[in-house]
Amino acid sequence: MAFEYLTNVALHQARQEYMDWLKSKGFEHKTETVPVYTACGRITAKAVYAAISAPHYAASAMDGVAVNAVDTFGATETTPITLPADKFTVLDTGDPIPEGCDAVIMVEDIVKNEDSSITIHAAAAPWQHIRQIGEDICAGEMILGAYMPVSPSAIGAMIAGGVLEIEVIAAPKVGIIPTGDEIIPPCANPKPGDILEFNSSIFSGMVRGWGAEPVTYPIVPDKYDMIMAAVKKASEECDLVILNAGSSAGREDFSARVIRELGEVLYHGIAMKPGKPAILGCCGATPVLGVPGYPVSGIIVIEELLKPLVDMWFKAQHERKEFVSAVLTRPVVSGLKYQEFVRVRMGYVGKRLMASPLSRGSGVVSSFMKADGILEVPQGTEGYEAGTEVQVRLLCPEEKLKNSLVIIGSHDPLLDELGNMLHIEDNELYMSSSHVGSMGGIMALRRGEAHAAGCHLLDTETGIYNKAFIKKYFPKGNVKLVRCVGRQQGLMVAKGNPLNIEKFSDIARESLRFVNRQKGSGTRILTDYLCKTNSVDTDSIYGYEREELTHTSVAVQIASGSADVGMGIFSAAQLYDLDFIPICIEEYDLIIPDHAWDEPQTQAMLRVLKSEEFKQRLTAMGGYTLDAPGEIIEID
Amino acid sequence: MAFEYLTNVALHQARQEYMDWLKSKGFEHKTETVPVYTACGRITAKAVYAAISAPHYAASAMDGVAVNAVDTFGATETTPITLPADKFTVLDTGDPIPEGCDAVIMVEDIVKNEDSSITIHAAAAPWQHIRQIGEDICAGEMILGAYMPVSPSAIGAMIAGGVLEIEVIAAPKVGIIPTGDEIIPPCANPKPGDILEFNSSIFSGMVRGWGAEPVTYPIVPDKYDMIMAAVKKASEECDLVILNAGSSAGREDFSARVIRELGEVLYHGIAMKPGKPAILGCCGATPVLGVPGYPVSGIIVIEELLKPLVDMWFKAQHERKEFVSAVLTRPVVSGLKYQEFVRVRMGYVGKRLMASPLSRGSGVVSSFMKADGILEVPQGTEGYEAGTEVQVRLLCPEEKLKNSLVIIGSHDPLLDELGNMLHIEDNELYMSSSHVGSMGGIMALRRGEAHAAGCHLLDTETGIYNKAFIKKYFPKGNVKLVRCVGRQQGLMVAKGNPLNIEKFSDIARESLRFVNRQKGSGTRILTDYLCKTNSVDTDSIYGYEREELTHTSVAVQIASGSADVGMGIFSAAQLYDLDFIPICIEEYDLIIPDHAWDEPQTQAMLRVLKSEEFKQRLTAMGGYTLDAPGEIIEID
Repeated sequence: MAFEYLTNVALHQARQEYMDWLKSKGFEHKTETVPVYTACGRITAKAVYAAISAPHYAASAMDGVAVNAVDTFGATETTPITLPADKFTVLDTGDPIPEGCDAVIMVEDIVKNEDSSITIHAAAAPWQHIRQIGEDICAGEMILGAYMPVSPSAIGAMIAGGVLEIEVIAAPKVGIIPTGDEIIPPCANPKPGDILEFNSSIFSGMVRGWGAEPVTYPIVPDKYDMIMAAVKKASEECDLVILNAGSSAGREDFSARVIRELGEVLYHGIAMKPGKPAILGCCGATPVLGVPGYPVSGIIVIEELLKPLVDMWFKAQHERKEFVSAVLTRPVVSGLKYQEFVRVRMGYVGKRLMASPLSRGSGVVSSFMKADGILEVPQGTEGYEAGTEVQVRLLCPEEKLKNSLVIIGSHDPLLDELGNMLHIEDNELYMSSSHVGSMGGIMALRRGEAHAAGCHLLDTETGIYNKAFIKKYFPKGNVKLVRCVGRQQGLMVAKGNPLNIEKFSDIARESLRFVNRQKGSGTRILTDYLCKTNSVDTDSIYGYEREELTHTSVAVQIASGSADVGMGIFSAAQLYDLDFIPICIEEYDLIIPDHAWDEPQTQAMLRVLKSEEFKQRLTAMGGYTLDAPGEIIEID
Repeated sequence: MAFEYLTNVALHQARQEYMDWLKSKGFEHKTETVPVYTACGRITAKAVYAAISAPHYAASAMDGVAVNAVDTFGATETTPITLPADKFTVLDTGDPIPEGCDAVIMVEDIVKNEDSSITIHAAAAPWQHIRQIGEDICAGEMILGAYMPVSPSAIGAMIAGGVLEIEVIAAPKVGIIPTGDEIIPPCANPKPGDILEFNSSIFSGMVRGWGAEPVTYPIVPDKYDMIMAAVKKASEECDLVILNAGSSAGREDFSARVIRELGEVLYHGIAMKPGKPAILGCCGATPVLGVPGYPVSGIIVIEELLKPLVDMWFKAQHERKEFVSAVLTRPVVSGLKYQEFVRVRMGYVGKRLMASPLSRGSGVVSSFMKADGILEVPQGTEGYEAGTEVQVRLLCPEEKLKNSLVIIGSHDPLLDELGNMLHIEDNELYMSSSHVGSMGGIMALRRGEAHAAGCHLLDTETGIYNKAFIKKYFPKGNVKLVRCVGRQQGLMVAKGNPLNIEKFSDIARESLRFVNRQKGSGTRILTDYLCKTNSVDTDSIYGYEREELTHTSVAVQIASGSADVGMGIFSAAQLYDLDFIPICIEEYDLIIPDHAWDEPQTQAMLRVLKSEEFKQRLTAMGGYTLDAPGEIIEID
């Protein structure tokens, strides 16, 4: 069955029409009555009026005595008045004013006499030091209007006003229907071909954050009748329905057919990426949103098309997106036909906010987790060049970006550990690392885009690491080279070394499948260098052009049997229980530009580098030599 | 027993010392292990590493056929290659790549032949269209560091990485102990002297909003032993304890004695207002915070001294307060000895953000509910003059302030109704009204501080309302006068009119207790005018100087028997079931400056004024005549 993309309607238009269409179908919020003390954060369904006044009686505002003010008229310093015991009442703050009294005199202002009378030296004004009835709230007064959030202090005001329960907007039930033959509930040991069903967990978290109540239905196989039954049930039981199609061909068509059969489809196909195959439909007054199976597509579709419905339900103004200006570190190419949502990682370097595009694969859910912002490329725009100032919608507090250490360059798992320890040492600091290889890191530093770069570049003339590159690329010397670790580089092979690989030149053996690192990475330079010095013709290596971006992803290809050998560091091999043939120890150092040296996050990172915890953790990971990490290396 | 204020320590110092002191006592978070799908919004207790890779098998990224790439080498447009059925496998997106295959060709790029073979016109590159193992997440990779919030997409990443449960920071249990002999649980019909216990509901809402779990204990009477037992129990069962003292004298001393007996007190008395009698103590490693009984004091103390502890527990950076610049509409006088927290109502008028101080009584919980911001007057500052630009901490989104209609002037309950209907008509719009009397409203307009002012000022020469004042105070004519309602003004007296009040001049009768409105209010001008025209000597009226700020608060004094008679409008009398002696109909109009006329909130308000709903609602309230509300009144 072929995809049937009926429409390519602009997102903003589809959204507005969908909202209007649903309103015309009768989509509207429900209400419920709840005890006031449970109502914090809820939205009032109608105006709340005070049932009683607060204070509900005239109360003393002070500790002292209640009197009838006329009895005190004429009292002065020179002509004090003495009141017998039956002309006043002792009372504490909050006590009711006795019948016949209309003023309170503070305890500090009276003189107690031995005969139980009191003497006063100033007249009391009527109603002084009395909290009058309704001083806070008058009975009948509107405490809170309709469609207003209930704050903790509003709860206090309502209870004070004698209101013990209120009508609020009910949380809409959002039914989530996962579908797909190959989808299975989360487990720790899936079989090849099994796809773990985590979309409903993501969607549940999202909608709960918006005030809705998620209802996740069991996984429905790809059978028309079963999907039909599930959508029917959900649309009867819930206020909004998400039909989460699998990612296989024709799946979305199933969804559209089911929704059409049970109700109506307004649009199938939106000019957005990811998320194009979204379906905007309804069953009666219940919106049914067909959401693509890939998690990133699903997140974007739900955010852009379901959240406005939830906001509409709550009569909340649709949250205005907050955009900030940032400089793109890499180009973004986009299609003219759709609005694209690109996840970016962000960080301030000096006063400039940098944005690095993350993986755009819609299956890559970790890219969303790592994203600090979303760059929306409008329909009709081909994208942006590197260095362009763009508007990015923030997904995290801007404060976090100001407190992030931006590391761009060669990848090593130690960076994750360093970032974790940095945040543990000072909870206000974060690390944001991007993996673009050693040369990529140097270029990023030259453009002022990072606080530090991980680097292990071999000078193939001298066999010395890093120094020559610093001299070449930073001729003015405005950077420091900081010792980090020595790393064991070698060949990773399957457990037990079944193919008997012994030395570097074995990688060119026929029928052996090699997996390489990307050009510009330190490991690639090392590999190219070793090929040259070992007289290995790279054209003779099967898979030399197959590039992975990290040590661990090379290791994983070998562990899974999709490759036989690759260059990498010991810790990656250990992680995947691979055999490791040591080839050499390389220096993995950090380059830190002078402008970033005094930043608190840089200094905190240097402290962590020198710490005992760091040494212990890396020793446990294995394959590292730690010789005074954090020390500045003299270049000349 | 006298108050025993031991210290007047600066707030920021007390806070920091308290945190350090508690840390030294061993105050630290607990952790718990929870299923990942329930972890949204929780904070990780330690770094989370992937257990499996995602994808956990090599998967097709397309619908098409899996092949061994070498079988396709050499295929071009002019030299196609045909593969027999045993050399390829048909597969859908997400399907695992079969053994022996290392590339996928898209369905669009193959030609199916009748003999079940396929023909291809381009060679396949090894690993094309294959989602490799670990493309998203590699086993062993750090998914999330320690002390990081769990986002919906992080839940997806963890499930994809085979992590089904994680260790998170447990929600701290915050024990709340209400104390006081006169405190009773919320009810609708309290007796005089009863104080409704709503502080624990406010505090619960606050701490739940910070991620903690409130535990409210039963009300404890003012008995030393009983308070002792309650604090002991709470400090054993909870992670933090709030001891909420009553407002009577000596109560705080009880609290301090109890805490000293069970543990230690660091400070008793902080240089803050409200909140001075706060007690910073602990029992073992459990913080015990003594909080004053007045709700506003309690809110401030908890926000300033408990929230930092909760943030510390969660290893969260203490939220930086967001301040905005605003212009004070009224002076704020503060003491040198303490840092003061003044609630302000705010709104943008044009590009200027105005801040109007609200009631500063610490018993007035509604002032906190109405507050849009908090003005913090530093210790050592005497306050600010009106017109000063001050820094205010926002309690609401700035967007709300931009969409608020600011009405300052004479009070009428119809304003609450108008604001409510405005927000119902357009959920993005709000009304912010301050009651300063008709003249106060005119002055505010002259200073450019409002979009509109409610006004009912009688020209005592002509008997005509409002026009003369417009001419006098806006000689350039840059305002419009908009008809609102006619209001029945009269004397409010107790039900059944027991004192037989018949005409205005009766208010001067001996032994009759009058309650007046504040100077500058339209009703006060009317009352003064009526005194003059009825030849009543105001000095002969008992209570003429007793001023209330609103019609309803005058009505409430009469309903409660604390006064016998007062001038006011019919709707207020009706609200309190009072008898009403009509005196005259006055014109209550709105003055709208030209600069505010075209603002969307002004136009929306005018639409509401002209609506049928508005007429119906005011007719139901009674005492109003509605003659073309919303119409512009010609001044000359």
